[in-house]
Amino acid sequence: MPSDFDEFEIIERYFAPLARGEPGAFGLTDDAAELTIAPGKRAVITMDAIVAGVHFPLSEDPKTIAGRLVRVNLSDLAAKGARPRGYTLALALPDTTTPDWVAAFAQGLADEQEEFGITLLGGDTTRSRGELMLSLTMIGEVSDNTMILRSGASVGDDIYVSGTIGDAMLGLALMENRIEAPDDPMRTELVDRFRRPNPRVTVGLGLVGLASAAADVSDGLVADLNHICRASTVSAEIELESVPLSLAARGLVTDNQPLHLNLLSGGDDYELVFTAPGNVSEQLQALAAQCGVGLTRIGRVIAQDAQPDAVIVRDSNGKQLEAGDGGYKHFRRRRKR
Amino acid sequence: MPSDFDEFEIIERYFAPLARGEPGAFGLTDDAAELTIAPGKRAVITMDAIVAGVHFPLSEDPKTIAGRLVRVNLSDLAAKGARPRGYTLALALPDTTTPDWVAAFAQGLADEQEEFGITLLGGDTTRSRGELMLSLTMIGEVSDNTMILRSGASVGDDIYVSGTIGDAMLGLALMENRIEAPDDPMRTELVDRFRRPNPRVTVGLGLVGLASAAADVSDGLVADLNHICRASTVSAEIELESVPLSLAARGLVTDNQPLHLNLLSGGDDYELVFTAPGNVSEQLQALAAQCGVGLTRIGRVIAQDAQPDAVIVRDSNGKQLEAGDGGYKHFRRRRKR
Repeated sequence: MPSDFDEFEIIERYFAPLARGEPGAFGLTDDAAELTIAPGKRAVITMDAIVAGVHFPLSEDPKTIAGRLVRVNLSDLAAKGARPRGYTLALALPDTTTPDWVAAFAQGLADEQEEFGITLLGGDTTRSRGELMLSLTMIGEVSDNTMILRSGASVGDDIYVSGTIGDAMLGLALMENRIEAPDDPMRTELVDRFRRPNPRVTVGLGLVGLASAAADVSDGLVADLNHICRASTVSAEIELESVPLSLAARGLVTDNQPLHLNLLSGGDDYELVFTAPGNVSEQLQALAAQCGVGLTRIGRVIAQDAQPDAVIVRDSNGKQLEAGDGGYKHFRRRRKR
Repeated sequence: MPSDFDEFEIIERYFAPLARGEPGAFGLTDDAAELTIAPGKRAVITMDAIVAGVHFPLSEDPKTIAGRLVRVNLSDLAAKGARPRGYTLALALPDTTTPDWVAAFAQGLADEQEEFGITLLGGDTTRSRGELMLSLTMIGEVSDNTMILRSGASVGDDIYVSGTIGDAMLGLALMENRIEAPDDPMRTELVDRFRRPNPRVTVGLGLVGLASAAADVSDGLVADLNHICRASTVSAEIELESVPLSLAARGLVTDNQPLHLNLLSGGDDYELVFTAPGNVSEQLQALAAQCGVGLTRIGRVIAQDAQPDAVIVRDSNGKQLEAGDGGYKHFRRRRKR
């Protein structure tokens, strides 16, 4: 697609109108759609496509590609509080694909299935005239009216993130030799965070009934929190120093506030950003302990601000910092609808 | 993919093992998977991918591409007796894609949605480094235990097809100037059958409770009937002269038995081939009248034959004819799992 062709615009302009007939499609503004199948249960469906040379290096190993494709979809379900059930997969394979490649790819899928308790349900295999392209549709389920939406945040809610933020962006920058790592273990840790996202499925399931709104951090913390704000007609105020960083990331951003701020725009972390009322904070800490994943309060939901950026970032002195959500655009080449 | 790389083999070897955990995936041998969502109703999921220059000409107009993609998926649901609900769509767009192209493509989707009562539910839009690639996941629903499987055919059942067979293959041959049409209206009729398949959704819904097994004719009548035979551990005997042809097709195959036989191997008709016990023949004729679509008895299910080809084609004198299911391989470049 030409670079001046904005995918969000495409979606809003051409595809959102096509989703009007189904309330569960949420106007294509959410990570997944839900369908009422029968009283009590609803199917949750999400889909992601990835292309070699666009979303991963041409030389990437097939197990990693399989893992990434499954995990980014699971992350979408996690943000909805949905239990993953299974998935369909479309493969467009270039002429150079070898049986070994397919075997390793399938093994990668098998590993993911075992880890996450999901099953391949079907799909389509075809020939590509260009690069490898894969698309995956993940089906999950939720009980009636328990799906966590982007639109549920209320003024006064606390804002949380799971895990740590910015590692994937640093990992990609390391892979592309745009920055240097202090040491090899740190490099490996950060690169792995990009290559092998860790979808917060158990956290997501635990958030049902606690979180008022949620999204996964795929486009970047500020961008994805902004999605919540827009859907909920609120604004958000977060404190830079509260955003949890890994030791590796903290090492890289010490005395470098621009890079530190940039982490808030870095995508591909596949953590969850969510809002919750203050009276569930103890339950959230219990959930964090139970899942072994940090859940850190980073700010609060405020009344919708007059300024266009719904997410305000402040330093520890309360000074507003410039952290647009465009910082990751140089790295990020895909947009979900 | 290299030409010596058989997709069926890939599926059986690498992907079918991944589907073992979910009975509703049917070992990836069926057109769609079903998931029990709650007592009473099940979701039915199918997925197809198409690539420019592989499944349609690079110059094909976007409305036609949209229509074809939606319709081949609806055809899968029709073969299951499922009611279509909605779909997700992944688009990988080359750099040359124009807004006009996307607008026309979306309009094509809108037209299909109106005709078939379905809704876009979500998806993913990304960049392609090569040609346009699209994949679509269609979600339908069936009541418990009513999904028509490939595996339900019994010895003594009648074999039927909807509509007419072979038109799409002739249409493609005309488009590629491999054969000549007697006149323009006939050419248009056949080419349209290839470009704009007519999924038999209403027929499929009506077949619930009547058909013992069904598949859609995507790979070719013999090949798809063979799928039913293998899944049902039976063989089939059909009579060449009973297979319904359009007037246009009949004109082209008169005095040309090889071409006539070849139509039975021609894919992309997206008609339904199904089996049914003899005692529902009147109900089937009533369904045909109600839907305005011919349902023609073309043969019967017999005990599994010792010979490898499960589908035996005979002429009107009972003489066995050679009609392998490989006849369409020259045209057909995709395989479903």
